[in-house]
Amino acid sequence: MSHHVRRRLLFSLASVLLALSLSCERAPEAPLGPGIAEPFPGARGGVERILAAARADDRAWARLAEMCDTFGPRPAGSTAYLAAARWAADTMRADGLDGVRLEPVEVEAWERGRESLVLLAPNGPRPLPVTTLGGSVGTPPGGIEADLVVVHDFDELERRAGEVRGKVVLFDHPMEDRDDMFRAYGDAVKYRWAGASRAARHGARAVLVRSLTTRSLRTLHTGQMGYDEDAPRIPAAAITVEDSAMLARLAARGVPLRVLLRLGPHRLGRRPCPNVVAELPGRELPDEVVVVGAHLDSWDLGNGAMDDGGGVILALETARLLRENGLVPRRTIRVVLFAGEEIGGLPGGHAYVEAHREELDRHVAALESDAGTFRPTGFSVRAGDEARERLARYVRLIADGDGLELREGGGGPDVSPLGREGVPVIGLRTDTTHYFDYHHSPADMPEAVPDEDLRESLAVFAAMAWLVAEAPDPLPRAPEKP
Amino acid sequence: MSHHVRRRLLFSLASVLLALSLSCERAPEAPLGPGIAEPFPGARGGVERILAAARADDRAWARLAEMCDTFGPRPAGSTAYLAAARWAADTMRADGLDGVRLEPVEVEAWERGRESLVLLAPNGPRPLPVTTLGGSVGTPPGGIEADLVVVHDFDELERRAGEVRGKVVLFDHPMEDRDDMFRAYGDAVKYRWAGASRAARHGARAVLVRSLTTRSLRTLHTGQMGYDEDAPRIPAAAITVEDSAMLARLAARGVPLRVLLRLGPHRLGRRPCPNVVAELPGRELPDEVVVVGAHLDSWDLGNGAMDDGGGVILALETARLLRENGLVPRRTIRVVLFAGEEIGGLPGGHAYVEAHREELDRHVAALESDAGTFRPTGFSVRAGDEARERLARYVRLIADGDGLELREGGGGPDVSPLGREGVPVIGLRTDTTHYFDYHHSPADMPEAVPDEDLRESLAVFAAMAWLVAEAPDPLPRAPEKP
Repeated sequence: MSHHVRRRLLFSLASVLLALSLSCERAPEAPLGPGIAEPFPGARGGVERILAAARADDRAWARLAEMCDTFGPRPAGSTAYLAAARWAADTMRADGLDGVRLEPVEVEAWERGRESLVLLAPNGPRPLPVTTLGGSVGTPPGGIEADLVVVHDFDELERRAGEVRGKVVLFDHPMEDRDDMFRAYGDAVKYRWAGASRAARHGARAVLVRSLTTRSLRTLHTGQMGYDEDAPRIPAAAITVEDSAMLARLAARGVPLRVLLRLGPHRLGRRPCPNVVAELPGRELPDEVVVVGAHLDSWDLGNGAMDDGGGVILALETARLLRENGLVPRRTIRVVLFAGEEIGGLPGGHAYVEAHREELDRHVAALESDAGTFRPTGFSVRAGDEARERLARYVRLIADGDGLELREGGGGPDVSPLGREGVPVIGLRTDTTHYFDYHHSPADMPEAVPDEDLRESLAVFAAMAWLVAEAPDPLPRAPEKP
Repeated sequence: MSHHVRRRLLFSLASVLLALSLSCERAPEAPLGPGIAEPFPGARGGVERILAAARADDRAWARLAEMCDTFGPRPAGSTAYLAAARWAADTMRADGLDGVRLEPVEVEAWERGRESLVLLAPNGPRPLPVTTLGGSVGTPPGGIEADLVVVHDFDELERRAGEVRGKVVLFDHPMEDRDDMFRAYGDAVKYRWAGASRAARHGARAVLVRSLTTRSLRTLHTGQMGYDEDAPRIPAAAITVEDSAMLARLAARGVPLRVLLRLGPHRLGRRPCPNVVAELPGRELPDEVVVVGAHLDSWDLGNGAMDDGGGVILALETARLLRENGLVPRRTIRVVLFAGEEIGGLPGGHAYVEAHREELDRHVAALESDAGTFRPTGFSVRAGDEARERLARYVRLIADGDGLELREGGGGPDVSPLGREGVPVIGLRTDTTHYFDYHHSPADMPEAVPDEDLRESLAVFAAMAWLVAEAPDPLPRAPEKP
């Protein structure tokens, strides 16, 4: 039986049961269909209206494109970020939200400069695409000309430590194509983050890393890197999967490789980079807060449509959709667009916690979408057992039985400081098959976000936000750590 | 019934019929299975050995990667082209071919220079990816700063002719995603080829065109453009699908667009760019020639793996495979790597015809692969009815009944001058679904050519070349035009 037919059959069955149940006194959590319970009276009706409204909505994608097209990339601390933040605030006001404000955050800003990589041998000069990693120091103005050593992992680097002094080291470590792409990323990202210091300890002059993606059209993927305190700071850049594979093949054939690398990034010092905050005040319990958030900053190569423009739009549209459809919940929905997620250290997330410390105990939950707005697959949750059980029932209600899954997980980077304060955090999960095709690359443009997936993500995300904000009892906090 | 099961069933049936037929005296063209005839004695055995050898071969992809990795892009008239031509000649010698030589060709060489496009408004400056079209003139050194007008086709250009004077014109014409991608390309390429002159007639200062692809990761696709005699010569460049769509959306929202375009290409004048030629001399009729060809030059953005490195490898490997497997055919197989296909005018194809005019009547056929080396789908043929009928039977034999198709078509660009001299021309056709993902772009790297598809292309291409060169009678020429 197809999923579709089964859904229709279940729906018919549920309708019969619903009709029968209407003549009875209904317990608040009576099952209304096979395995589907209404967690509180009115929950089903509200969710159904939200799902229908989101699926019929044609403004989410249009708004995503408007933001991306109008401002371009939104790196933390840039003027484009500030312009996008003002646009977001204006949008919130136009949507009828209250208390629209920019809450001050400062970030250590960094800016890409000129960058080039030339393969001098064999048969050079051949320009190869290259992108400086975020936070990297630059090369001397004339560049670094050196032989290239190709290694595939840290073990090989250690085995061949004697060969790298004075050289440029390439980490040709492929990212695996797996079901859980975030895990695959987690396994491969260490070469981007820590490769420079590891190679510098053996005297390397610069490092190149293979872009973190499994599908490439010679696409560059940047991302933040870090330096250990006890290693020389050497420049670090990413090259494409294809060029990394080419250099590895040449090296395997015994061909001597020589490169000229020029990177001219700038550290810009501390720059303002505010969080953007506004509220849809709660109908009955306006002091109790449900945060719906995403990060407004993006990498500088693309227009940050998927990472995390889609999340920004879900946060904005959740508030707009609930308000426009007469579904203002019991508690306050607070939209928070966080600053500076991409540059590490979560300055926006921490600034929010500091600014709102007084009311953290009235934060019922914090939702974030920063794992793509592709076809939704469920939620990741960090919360106590009782809260997780309740959220699992919300998920079943939203999914009309199945199709969405609740998993233990971080919720989202920007809300994780709230999570550490005991606030239950909830992250939207979506199909990650193509997430890393676009991630941190020039291809992170609105075309990366399918309209129908964005609608469905909005449907599921807004429904969850509403359930958490509307439920008669607040989501239980985990018992405090001893 | 699946294709696989059906094939197995037909194969069993064919085996039974074959066993029965072995006890009889076999007519040279007796059907050996349902619809499969052996066109001449030994044809089946030869084809089977070639298919098996090609499918088991692991040198084709390795050789493709070796060529692409070692020399990088091979634009016509470049030193990289010359180096690759010498490598090809050395490879032919190592493979035991005869008469290895570089046959002189000269081309008008053109070289990309610095190029940049900056979106000045709205919210600029924002650098956008840009690539100069082949043959384009440059901008003044300071660039062209102008408002941008977005049109979608020539009709709209004519309707809005009054708006374009002094402006940069963007042709945002999407390439359609169709079954026949070459037709889709044919429909869309006119904006790349003729857009500059069309817009220049109305006073435009430069043109941008949307890259010709249906799948993009912000990928640039270049290609040759042309100028009409009677229009001012203005610079022309391609931008990505995503940026073209973005600018079109901004224009549709009424946002004023302003750009700064800098293109610094160089015309290098006439440069040597030889064809590379060698022979596997025929066993019985060495004066009769079957050309197997492809073009050695490539665009300058990628390493020319798919266009037309795969074809080059098929030509080289066809000769090697036949020789190594003791299948030297009756007629001479002449490998010809043609020069300068990408820059227009087919200098390599015409030079070959001129150099070999004396022996054109002894050219039995010319095969080319320049339509990708993906999963083979058949052949395109320009020949008389009698030859086409015979080739159709070869195709059925190679395909073991079905799965490959013979179509009327050009055969291939470089052999088309031979076709115009009456030589039957035969082009390999393959699944074009992904051809334009890579075409003329930086992504045209060995990763674009799946190993198993290259083997299968080699199997089918080499089998066809051998059948044409081995058949007792030469492929009939079409009756001469009156």
